[in-house]
Amino acid sequence: MTRERAHRSPPIQERAFHRWLESHLAAGRSGLLPLGDDAAAIRPPRGQVAVLTTDALVEGTHFRAESDPGQVGAAAVGVSLSDLAAKGARPAALLLAVVVPRGTPASWAQALIAGGSRCARAYGAEIVGGDTKPGPVRTIVSSAVGWAAPGRLAPRTAARPGDVLVTTGEVGRGGLAAAHLNDRHWPRARSLRELLDVRPRVREGIRIARWAHAMLDTSDGLGESAWLLSAASHVRVVVEESQLPLARGLARAARTPARRRTLAFFGGDYELLAAVPEPGLERAQEAVASAGGTLTVIGRVERGRGAWLATSRGRRPMPHSGWQPFGPEPVPAF
Amino acid sequence: MTRERAHRSPPIQERAFHRWLESHLAAGRSGLLPLGDDAAAIRPPRGQVAVLTTDALVEGTHFRAESDPGQVGAAAVGVSLSDLAAKGARPAALLLAVVVPRGTPASWAQALIAGGSRCARAYGAEIVGGDTKPGPVRTIVSSAVGWAAPGRLAPRTAARPGDVLVTTGEVGRGGLAAAHLNDRHWPRARSLRELLDVRPRVREGIRIARWAHAMLDTSDGLGESAWLLSAASHVRVVVEESQLPLARGLARAARTPARRRTLAFFGGDYELLAAVPEPGLERAQEAVASAGGTLTVIGRVERGRGAWLATSRGRRPMPHSGWQPFGPEPVPAF
Repeated sequence: MTRERAHRSPPIQERAFHRWLESHLAAGRSGLLPLGDDAAAIRPPRGQVAVLTTDALVEGTHFRAESDPGQVGAAAVGVSLSDLAAKGARPAALLLAVVVPRGTPASWAQALIAGGSRCARAYGAEIVGGDTKPGPVRTIVSSAVGWAAPGRLAPRTAARPGDVLVTTGEVGRGGLAAAHLNDRHWPRARSLRELLDVRPRVREGIRIARWAHAMLDTSDGLGESAWLLSAASHVRVVVEESQLPLARGLARAARTPARRRTLAFFGGDYELLAAVPEPGLERAQEAVASAGGTLTVIGRVERGRGAWLATSRGRRPMPHSGWQPFGPEPVPAF
Repeated sequence: MTRERAHRSPPIQERAFHRWLESHLAAGRSGLLPLGDDAAAIRPPRGQVAVLTTDALVEGTHFRAESDPGQVGAAAVGVSLSDLAAKGARPAALLLAVVVPRGTPASWAQALIAGGSRCARAYGAEIVGGDTKPGPVRTIVSSAVGWAAPGRLAPRTAARPGDVLVTTGEVGRGGLAAAHLNDRHWPRARSLRELLDVRPRVREGIRIARWAHAMLDTSDGLGESAWLLSAASHVRVVVEESQLPLARGLARAARTPARRRTLAFFGGDYELLAAVPEPGLERAQEAVASAGGTLTVIGRVERGRGAWLATSRGRRPMPHSGWQPFGPEPVPAF
């Protein structure tokens, strides 16, 4: 949506917006309750448990005023689907709470919902409800429900010494995008798109969960996830730096090893990090490959404590996330 | 929490806050996944469907900076539980997404969660997860999951001509609280408390749903709910003004019939409005009374269109909600 179009769209009226929402989201519903009712209802598959997650995206923190609203909606949905993926859950339903300033063009919110809805459907889920409220800052909260087999939730507390450490996709895409935002030679619109380009590993997560002891997503960066896994499972986590599947362009953007680490472990990757017992590794890799993904061995789980990066100069503590949401400086400057 | 204590509390650090959250919410969990994992998991009762809802509360719109955070948390939870109540669902789990400015005292968020948690437990539910993100304005999004029998969801589309119209509790508590906020003679702290005093009719909703054709909550006021019911079910809804169980103090605060209507139908009531077939009425009333509540007959459903208020001077169109969240003036002035 261009800014021009946005400005020609009338401001949001809650009821008119809800009517649009109902017509837009009407397809593919379970029929248990009509859209626009006080709540939505979905039927659990027999023997499965409900997996629940919620995530907030805030203008100025996660996206900018000029970010494409369709992409903001898709990212809001994608971030929640990434959490479901980390528990091997099959996405079923999403709720979107949308806070916008009075006078926001209706087309902005419509593009947001349409983008979120497209993303949800691409992973087999539906937006089944939501809420719209006025507030000074655009804020999107996406809540998701998925279904999983109760024995295959891969809790982050269950990694065991001897497990192989694997990750999907690439490492450092989020850091690279954040760095591009501060690069005067990089088109701003492109870096804003990159920052919101969340690709939840839903198909991979469902497959990995069949074999993994523990799994979590890398939304705060692979390094932070390694620390979280270590603390939750009371194990030592060791990552081989030479094995990391670095994001394309990262090596060129960061010329020193220190800079490469800053970007690689910065956060915003939305890949999966899992501890898989050796005997299941090959089948997990085959299953992920059959779903069009990749699963790279990057280290192992040992007895002990802490998260460590094994480099050509020896082990060093794993870098934490560069993005401290409550710290003073959210984006790394070049 | 006093402001003084709040200012002595250190600012929120996301991880420290999550650790506190995990220890605080640890009791009463299903054990399927540890708190702090990417998502929470709950087990559906056999044969029940999941009922889902989400609601946003925004500082400046729904609460003030000086509002008691424990009450804000309880209200956020209560608003979502009211939606579950309207579908006869038994509350199971809540997720709280909390957006706060950097530097917000941790005690503010802790009091918020503690208040929300107390409210959830009072209705048999648990906060099982959430999200904390920095942003310029305090915003709370509560998402709730409940369980209900699939045949007893009382969709708002299912009211039928001949049904009796009933409501729980009192009419106009929200309007009275909003009016008090602008009354210089009313203690401000008291009116802020009144505005956040959400009492979801969970026990009543579960019982009414056994007999009701259609049910919805009156968060936007009884008048607005009557219009929504009429539009969704393609029926005429007629409310007898003389039968309305007006909130205590409302008649004294509003001396003219017009003013009484403004406050009665203003919104923020969180009662239930239901269309019950005549044969089930008495048992529905007995069931609600056995749960300590009241169910008042206030009108009927007829063939036709629109929502009408039958007054001593004849029928007039039902007043809409006074609170247009996206309109210019959220609170009625005296």
